[in-house]
Amino acid sequence: MTVNKRAAKVSEESLHRIFTIPVAPNSTLGRVESEISQNLAGFLGSHIAATEQALSEIEKDFADSQIPEDPAFVSDHMHHLLDKLVSQSVHTSSPNFIGHMTSALPYFILPLSKLMIGLNQNLVKIETSKAFTPMERQVLGMMHRLVYQDEEPFYQQWMHSANHSLGAFCSGGTVANLTALWVARNNLLKPDGDFKGVAREGLFKALKHYNYDGLAILVSARGHYSLKKSADVLGIGQDSVIAIPTDENNKIDCQLLEEKCQQLARENIQVLSIVGVAGTTETGNIDPLDKIADIAQRYNAHFHVDAAWGGATLLSNKYRPLLKGIELADSVTIDAHKQMYVPMGAGLVVFKNPASVAAIEHHAEYILRKGSKDLGSHTLEGSRPGMAMLVYAALHVISRPGYELLINGSIEKANYFAQLIEQHADFELVTKPELCLLTYRYNPSSVQKLLANASDVEQENINVLLDKLTEFIQKRQRENGKSFVSRTRIEVQKYQGRKTLVFRVVLANPLTTKTILQDVLAEQAQLAQESERFLPLLLSMS
Amino acid sequence: MTVNKRAAKVSEESLHRIFTIPVAPNSTLGRVESEISQNLAGFLGSHIAATEQALSEIEKDFADSQIPEDPAFVSDHMHHLLDKLVSQSVHTSSPNFIGHMTSALPYFILPLSKLMIGLNQNLVKIETSKAFTPMERQVLGMMHRLVYQDEEPFYQQWMHSANHSLGAFCSGGTVANLTALWVARNNLLKPDGDFKGVAREGLFKALKHYNYDGLAILVSARGHYSLKKSADVLGIGQDSVIAIPTDENNKIDCQLLEEKCQQLARENIQVLSIVGVAGTTETGNIDPLDKIADIAQRYNAHFHVDAAWGGATLLSNKYRPLLKGIELADSVTIDAHKQMYVPMGAGLVVFKNPASVAAIEHHAEYILRKGSKDLGSHTLEGSRPGMAMLVYAALHVISRPGYELLINGSIEKANYFAQLIEQHADFELVTKPELCLLTYRYNPSSVQKLLANASDVEQENINVLLDKLTEFIQKRQRENGKSFVSRTRIEVQKYQGRKTLVFRVVLANPLTTKTILQDVLAEQAQLAQESERFLPLLLSMS
Repeated sequence: MTVNKRAAKVSEESLHRIFTIPVAPNSTLGRVESEISQNLAGFLGSHIAATEQALSEIEKDFADSQIPEDPAFVSDHMHHLLDKLVSQSVHTSSPNFIGHMTSALPYFILPLSKLMIGLNQNLVKIETSKAFTPMERQVLGMMHRLVYQDEEPFYQQWMHSANHSLGAFCSGGTVANLTALWVARNNLLKPDGDFKGVAREGLFKALKHYNYDGLAILVSARGHYSLKKSADVLGIGQDSVIAIPTDENNKIDCQLLEEKCQQLARENIQVLSIVGVAGTTETGNIDPLDKIADIAQRYNAHFHVDAAWGGATLLSNKYRPLLKGIELADSVTIDAHKQMYVPMGAGLVVFKNPASVAAIEHHAEYILRKGSKDLGSHTLEGSRPGMAMLVYAALHVISRPGYELLINGSIEKANYFAQLIEQHADFELVTKPELCLLTYRYNPSSVQKLLANASDVEQENINVLLDKLTEFIQKRQRENGKSFVSRTRIEVQKYQGRKTLVFRVVLANPLTTKTILQDVLAEQAQLAQESERFLPLLLSMS
Repeated sequence: MTVNKRAAKVSEESLHRIFTIPVAPNSTLGRVESEISQNLAGFLGSHIAATEQALSEIEKDFADSQIPEDPAFVSDHMHHLLDKLVSQSVHTSSPNFIGHMTSALPYFILPLSKLMIGLNQNLVKIETSKAFTPMERQVLGMMHRLVYQDEEPFYQQWMHSANHSLGAFCSGGTVANLTALWVARNNLLKPDGDFKGVAREGLFKALKHYNYDGLAILVSARGHYSLKKSADVLGIGQDSVIAIPTDENNKIDCQLLEEKCQQLARENIQVLSIVGVAGTTETGNIDPLDKIADIAQRYNAHFHVDAAWGGATLLSNKYRPLLKGIELADSVTIDAHKQMYVPMGAGLVVFKNPASVAAIEHHAEYILRKGSKDLGSHTLEGSRPGMAMLVYAALHVISRPGYELLINGSIEKANYFAQLIEQHADFELVTKPELCLLTYRYNPSSVQKLLANASDVEQENINVLLDKLTEFIQKRQRENGKSFVSRTRIEVQKYQGRKTLVFRVVLANPLTTKTILQDVLAEQAQLAQESERFLPLLLSMS
């Protein structure tokens, strides 16, 4: 595939030109920009969730592994991008796209993004970011205060203090969780006498020095996969992440958590961290954070809260109590690019103790000199963009009460949708929304009755068929492109903890209407009828 | 400090509005956008490096830790940002800003950035990125081919293969280096009999199983600090990163490298990885990669090349031979946001063997299902933006020959500047440019003569004074705001390996002219005269 029809030429002048600000009002770049804006508005305004073209077809447009020897004109390449890339990307901002945590953006974010990218600040150090450094520290301070609600003097003292940090801005929740556990590990296995600490000497010597037979990270069975990834990266091992069963509301069973802690103590395995989940990825439920805090304290474990998705709920005075106990956490992850409506690439972790990050502090000769306020001395990442600016702007333009309206609206919408499902004879609500996330499946009323009285074997046979039906409907609905819900597999207590396939819906887009939700169900019921293999078989059993 | 003068109101309609596309041609957002564009053009067109306001002053504007209870109007907030943030940020794109690796961006990147951010794709999975996934895989394929130059069928087979990956797109070079060493560690300590591998069981059990007394990462004394950070994160420990001395050209001494490998073998310490540097951060030199490859193979060590900064040199047919041997590396880090002129947040690592990444593969129920082509199953990060699109566009619009012109131009400019320094009696070139980076200092000719014949003690006394003078000049020049060079401390062989303070210059901005370089030196010579404490003292000694 050749991208360029016309032949652009490479010359020093042409290159000089692309680095020079276009002055003419009717410059090519001006036209490109306005065409892109129009196309983007069209794309974002369209209410489809996705166009369905087979991935294998799309791959043909992205098959060339040679870097082009001929330059493309900007306008030609823009058309190529609009044609091949944009038109085949996912309408994450569509109000019908209710399957994932990626949602719509407020429009003022777009011009500000261009500004942020154009300034090309590098937040690793003040010399390449200047005012962006105190700005990011303020955002971390605001988020810290949102979680911990310390008094004004606390923030006066620590927010802009060199050698301290109220948190770390990250590319996303995975790096945020990893950073929290890295801090926890290094503080647990700190320097001690001749031992220079795990940061210097590594885990092998650290465990020998402290005479532990292992470390463990405890989290509910609903914990995010980034925790296992972090345990792998940190050298602790995925198997050290121990999944504690949940109760019927997908919340960690604190009795079992406590028993596991006791057992590990007997086995000389130190609990590095207990992780509470505030908004599980698959069901949206919140662990009893205050009770976990208690247990963590008793076993001298770092209490981390993964609130990547649910943390924004703290902005709602009405629903904040759902996260009771979060202020007891040693560290908390929140993704601004989830329920705070900021573009992808804005995660953060805050630490209760501003000195915690000393455990991961590092320096170099040319930057991050000791005593500097360079943010890079306490982050996992090095060079980083000024994404914090978009969080800063959103906090100011939307404001806390604005966020409260958005968050309350989402939760109420989820409750409405749950009601709709429960009222429909042929749908089964699998997990109720605590925040704006719920799971359900299509399950004809006659089959529901059958299931209630079936033997274990019969139940399994029916559920296997229902799983297939769920997958069929979800895929077909995605292919139709009008709307998108995701699917996942979760243990359902009602079916003896069987891992069951369900639709998963996240209702964060403020433009998603009740009518859209009614249509989603109607389409799914319709699609079920079209499943020639599964539905007739199911109905014939009942 | 109150941000809002006028009182905006929070209501469901006002919130609904900010998520709805502005249609009126003269909408507030349209005006905001055009004002931002003008301001940005003004900022980017200004040839100062930075305005000098004390950080403590700027911090006063970012002191409030309360999330606002009152929303700001978009236009008011934009003015606030322009006034308090933009005006106090660093002109990284100025042709006079020659102190760091962050440089100017081609202007076509800006409208494309807005598009990329507006689409808000999440590259962790196909369901939230669709065409962006094959696009990113193509970019990784192109960069892989740039490094390894495999044949077409290789790329046909692997570029879009599920369960394989030619590399990982990352937020930056630190995560790229970390990912490479993570892969190396997990492949070295792989499952073996009853042992389930380091990824599952952790480092403590892994070292016991394989009966190693430790691991080591070898890199020249000029290695980037992210390697120590990675060793810390990975549980290997910073002290396991062993700095091998360099020769007079800042290249690793392969004789000493080999001896260290032998010594470690005798101590039962396994060399996890030997890291070659292709463009050191402080001097811009390239290690003898082919010779390192040889040694790495003999000691069964993963050969990683940190070409975060210098890797783009491969785009120049003329200078590509400087990186001879890079094609033998098991993995290579390249930052597109450095010499590829893409905005901050675009790093990547490529792997010679497309199956290497299996060592860090992970899955979850709702995404990254086995056999899917989701990029997230082989990356450290989870949710990630579509930054690869900007690399894709730059590769097409600039093209390989365009990059060659840019890179050759930068190197030639550095050679010119080196000449200028050498011809000036009062400056001392400390490290010659191999790429477009060099270091030097102000050192009056009489003092240079004195140094040449001084005793060790005298030399040290003089160098201490010269260090102070260098720091004085660098800070004063930064404060003046007309131009910016950075400073670092490097071991200088001429002075018995003494760690000496130097100016550090990176000449990647295509708009930096010879006149600018002459002016930089002239200003530094002038500033030296203004140093009332150091220069007179130095001159009185000679």
